[in-house]
Amino acid sequence: MSVFDHSFLSGLLGDDRISEMMSAEAGIGAMLEFEAALAEAEEAEGLIAAGCGDRISASVSDFEPDYAALRDETARDGVVVPALLKQIRAHLDDQSAEALHFGATSQDVIDTSLAMRSLKVIDRLNEGLEKVIAELDALDSRDGGKTVMAHTRMQAALPVKVSRKIASWRDPLVRHRERMPAIRGQVGVLHLGGPVGDLNKLGDKGPAVAKRMAKLLGLEPSGQARHTERDGLADLANWLSLITGSLGKTGADIVLFAQQEMDEIELSKGGGSSAMPHKVNPVAAETLVAIARFNAIMLTGMHLSLVHENERSGSAWTLEWMVLPQMMIATGAAIRTADQLFQSISFVGIE
Amino acid sequence: MSVFDHSFLSGLLGDDRISEMMSAEAGIGAMLEFEAALAEAEEAEGLIAAGCGDRISASVSDFEPDYAALRDETARDGVVVPALLKQIRAHLDDQSAEALHFGATSQDVIDTSLAMRSLKVIDRLNEGLEKVIAELDALDSRDGGKTVMAHTRMQAALPVKVSRKIASWRDPLVRHRERMPAIRGQVGVLHLGGPVGDLNKLGDKGPAVAKRMAKLLGLEPSGQARHTERDGLADLANWLSLITGSLGKTGADIVLFAQQEMDEIELSKGGGSSAMPHKVNPVAAETLVAIARFNAIMLTGMHLSLVHENERSGSAWTLEWMVLPQMMIATGAAIRTADQLFQSISFVGIE
Amino acid sequence: MSVFDHSFLSGLLGDDRISEMMSAEAGIGAMLEFEAALAEAEEAEGLIAAGCGDRISASVSDFEPDYAALRDETARDGVVVPALLKQIRAHLDDQSAEALHFGATSQDVIDTSLAMRSLKVIDRLNEGLEKVIAELDALDSRDGGKTVMAHTRMQAALPVKVSRKIASWRDPLVRHRERMPAIRGQVGVLHLGGPVGDLNKLGDKGPAVAKRMAKLLGLEPSGQARHTERDGLADLANWLSLITGSLGKTGADIVLFAQQEMDEIELSKGGGSSAMPHKVNPVAAETLVAIARFNAIMLTGMHLSLVHENERSGSAWTLEWMVLPQMMIATGAAIRTADQLFQSISFVGIE
Amino acid sequence: MSVFDHSFLSGLLGDDRISEMMSAEAGIGAMLEFEAALAEAEEAEGLIAAGCGDRISASVSDFEPDYAALRDETARDGVVVPALLKQIRAHLDDQSAEALHFGATSQDVIDTSLAMRSLKVIDRLNEGLEKVIAELDALDSRDGGKTVMAHTRMQAALPVKVSRKIASWRDPLVRHRERMPAIRGQVGVLHLGGPVGDLNKLGDKGPAVAKRMAKLLGLEPSGQARHTERDGLADLANWLSLITGSLGKTGADIVLFAQQEMDEIELSKGGGSSAMPHKVNPVAAETLVAIARFNAIMLTGMHLSLVHENERSGSAWTLEWMVLPQMMIATGAAIRTADQLFQSISFVGIE
Repeated sequence: MSVFDHSFLSGLLGDDRISEMMSAEAGIGAMLEFEAALAEAEEAEGLIAAGCGDRISASVSDFEPDYAALRDETARDGVVVPALLKQIRAHLDDQSAEALHFGATSQDVIDTSLAMRSLKVIDRLNEGLEKVIAELDALDSRDGGKTVMAHTRMQAALPVKVSRKIASWRDPLVRHRERMPAIRGQVGVLHLGGPVGDLNKLGDKGPAVAKRMAKLLGLEPSGQARHTERDGLADLANWLSLITGSLGKTGADIVLFAQQEMDEIELSKGGGSSAMPHKVNPVAAETLVAIARFNAIMLTGMHLSLVHENERSGSAWTLEWMVLPQMMIATGAAIRTADQLFQSISFVGIE
Repeated sequence: MSVFDHSFLSGLLGDDRISEMMSAEAGIGAMLEFEAALAEAEEAEGLIAAGCGDRISASVSDFEPDYAALRDETARDGVVVPALLKQIRAHLDDQSAEALHFGATSQDVIDTSLAMRSLKVIDRLNEGLEKVIAELDALDSRDGGKTVMAHTRMQAALPVKVSRKIASWRDPLVRHRERMPAIRGQVGVLHLGGPVGDLNKLGDKGPAVAKRMAKLLGLEPSGQARHTERDGLADLANWLSLITGSLGKTGADIVLFAQQEMDEIELSKGGGSSAMPHKVNPVAAETLVAIARFNAIMLTGMHLSLVHENERSGSAWTLEWMVLPQMMIATGAAIRTADQLFQSISFVGIE
Repeated sequence: MSVFDHSFLSGLLGDDRISEMMSAEAGIGAMLEFEAALAEAEEAEGLIAAGCGDRISASVSDFEPDYAALRDETARDGVVVPALLKQIRAHLDDQSAEALHFGATSQDVIDTSLAMRSLKVIDRLNEGLEKVIAELDALDSRDGGKTVMAHTRMQAALPVKVSRKIASWRDPLVRHRERMPAIRGQVGVLHLGGPVGDLNKLGDKGPAVAKRMAKLLGLEPSGQARHTERDGLADLANWLSLITGSLGKTGADIVLFAQQEMDEIELSKGGGSSAMPHKVNPVAAETLVAIARFNAIMLTGMHLSLVHENERSGSAWTLEWMVLPQMMIATGAAIRTADQLFQSISFVGIE
Repeated sequence: MSVFDHSFLSGLLGDDRISEMMSAEAGIGAMLEFEAALAEAEEAEGLIAAGCGDRISASVSDFEPDYAALRDETARDGVVVPALLKQIRAHLDDQSAEALHFGATSQDVIDTSLAMRSLKVIDRLNEGLEKVIAELDALDSRDGGKTVMAHTRMQAALPVKVSRKIASWRDPLVRHRERMPAIRGQVGVLHLGGPVGDLNKLGDKGPAVAKRMAKLLGLEPSGQARHTERDGLADLANWLSLITGSLGKTGADIVLFAQQEMDEIELSKGGGSSAMPHKVNPVAAETLVAIARFNAIMLTGMHLSLVHENERSGSAWTLEWMVLPQMMIATGAAIRTADQLFQSISFVGIE
């Protein structure tokens, strides 16, 4: 039903690769990696019996969850982890079953799974941005010297070089890439806090376990679990919406330039109409505008979730799940769309 | 990836019945009904050749689309209709193929398909509200005479009857049911305008065709297609968010009353914790709060789409598709959740 | 600082009359009317000593608050009422001072004051809508027979009559006027519940007092105070945003038609440029688009406030104060702007 | 009418210092500084006649605008600059009058005025954050060793040290301070582009003029005017909402801990009730929650404004004016409120 997974709308609005990164299956996969890494690290620090780490790792490496059961129990528990652990334990010896998830809490597992996959999403988007910028550079090389009419307040103003126009599309994208490392650093942290965030069951071994786990999972250890500190995620959402907003601006410009009355841009690819075969609709450019607005709206959800009551807020956390994956896929779709669009336009020029 | 269709989160946040009503398949189904009704009506009014109506109706009645092709062409066209018509025409004789979709435009098909399914969604939600209100009445009958502590500004204030509290939950839901017929009337209209909304190809037969089609499809004929008049849909979205907001208020109250320190409400069902087996988490109540916030945010999208440029806005229309189905399913999920929750709580009372 | 009260931006974005209705002074004025009506009604029902009603009415009729003190104490109390009552009591004899506000709570006073003024705002906006519709009718009479090029997905499509275009502007406004009585009915209710909403101090006289007060204040008595039932206000906010959204659509169309390259509309009034004297900027039309988006965003705030914890939520209630008055003034500004704009445009026509 | 300037609500929700920085008067003041700096720089670069720079600087240094006239003409022009220039020119000799504003455009003036004042606002907020963090450190020193009950999903979970709780309040604020320099760098740029952003009237002197002006105004020269590149402002808005969201989380926690049934926190200052003198309402903490939600909503407006059509969008730009100043003041109010609140609480501890 979602446009991002939809039988036909996902061609317009989806991004297969990011959908896969944010799928339920990938989410469970990263949770299993978390449990394996936790067991390995805890065994190494002497918190669980020797051998448990390997047995748990081996068991989860080929574990196939029963999704119907996960679904039923998540409906009751609000989180998938209790049901998932029960299923994993059914394949373990008693000692390993007891050692599994020792000292951790559901939010450690789920937030770390999100962190691991968010890094992949960020890297994918960042590569996409690089490619889009290269397309703009190529467009600038080819058409930058042409002159077009600039428009201010939707009125023809004065002639301007295409190069100036492309620079106003390109420079924000370059800045978004410059913003990326700070976002990545805030998102790519291990969440390990235990039930109330103080890792109390691990005694003084908490930092050592966290350090080992972070290394195994490709994350940074954080001083403390950020169960209720969601600024990194809100900042990520802001970055996503900055990207789609900037691409939305290019879409708006292209839509306007592609008006036949203006005819300052030609689209080599466009959408057909069921009733008017003569039309070439600027579908890709309009889609960029729609996605920009979508993410601008959704961003509110991630900022509302900053208000996270006490040590864990079921309502704020659930809202994040409803919002963030959509924003990621929408951003991927915008980059994919922009990439195709920038390859298919040529500026006409007024002289 | 969407929580509403998700392998495990949909148990918490989904609504199978409304998901089905808003699925791609149901959408195509209603589009096929539109094309059949259009052909029947146009044949009856002498606009297309005799026999075409029946042949088109027969053909679409067992038509199975090729979704992969629909997806590819929607990515280009921005709408599914050109690709769908092409597929349908491949099964028709030349005369019927030409008669198919005569005088109509993609937006007629898609908006009418939405109208048809929206009525089903509204009816389903309305029945759900009725049931939820009945649960509250039952709760009032049982517990209404007990006394609980009222809280203002999150501080214990004065004792109040449970009946008063339940009334503040129930009365808005009753009003939402009273608001329903007006919403239903605005949503359940046929959209038939042709390419630019003036039905120009139908000559003076436009109103007669619209009247016949509306009857066949269970809709009201509207004076003119509302391709760019989206107030009915924005009002529907408002109604959805009013429902989830009011249920969110009950969720917030129950979460607070279920705090062990307050202990004014007992939950017979609640969520388990992976780390703290003694806890009974008020998952259903928290979910109501999350959904209320989600819909409050999404509502902005439907109101932004009121600004629909000229005779058809690709960007505003696409944004609607990203937003409205989610709001419908979220509302269904909230009603389902409230229904279960109200059956599982009992007020403790302070005396 | 607010654009609505701003030394120079309020000419563009403000509405003096609605600003006045929603001013602090008007708010206090209606609160004083509430206290007078409450005392009159309670005296009539024998709840306070004979004579107190008249003495309180007389005293508040020429009462001038000390705003600096109100401001200081509101900063502490979160509401103005305790400070206001203290100031009023300083002018009363002991018996009247004790009788003042008997059985009521701050939210009764503030919400009723809002209800009283909201009715005035609704009536003012409704009159404005009527006038705007009349302007469109006049425009239709004059230019409706001309032909312009329709545009779908921002591409020239087919010629269409100006009349068809104006109908798509006008009809939603007509429907907003039809929606008005339902909104007015939900908003124009007396809020009288006492501290926890059950009017407990008034014994069995509650309904009689409410009936008397409602009559005095031009409101309907509600079965119970709607301290936590904010659906009427959220619905009002939706109505405001429907109005501005529909006007935003007209603004978007006019901006596009006024492009020199399109030249389908002439503006007899427009904005000047500091650098390009040849330009006539479609400022009024752009303002309509900006206001439409503003209200679409703010609407989320009113819907979030539906989640009102327990018997009074300081946070949800405060959020309403930050949001609703702005939406009202913005709507007034949009109607004023549209009124001027519709008088200043003429369609050029393509033949 | 705005709560931020309101006769009594501004005590609760306003910030006098930031209101002043964002006032119409301060805005005009910075615009006058812009015009003086432009003239000085252009004289130095030989673009305007010798002496004009000094005469313009002298004239604007004691210029008092006629606000009523500014308001009237802004209503028509959409921007204040044409009217302002007309008023300034009335005090200048002909040569200086012609030299004034040479090569610049309204948006250069207004955006630079915003940049200059935004730096002050950022610095003020950053100082406020520093103070709030110091309050939390002091609170931690005093109460950090106490034990309180942690709550997850609104249920008592396990005991935790107050220090852990305060860390979850403090660390995000520290990170917001770390985010500040990047935000400041993006915001504090000179906007100088001329009518269509390419500084065409300044020939090859554009960069030299920009460099001189930036130095005079305490800004960085940017490679090109960012008339349509609003990512710096959207990022600033995100930073504001991150701050208020994080403070909103502390507010939510304090509200919950201050419930009498929980009694884990004592408020030495709180709000009084008009009806229930025994109550101490957690007004400051509730206000933090309200402001967090307000800014989360408003953030959408700044992100929508990223879609800025062509070389200047009247609608997107106007929307910024409606949104950003409010967010700044709300953030100032939140920091002020948090500062007072953190000084007035003490943790009770459970042992």
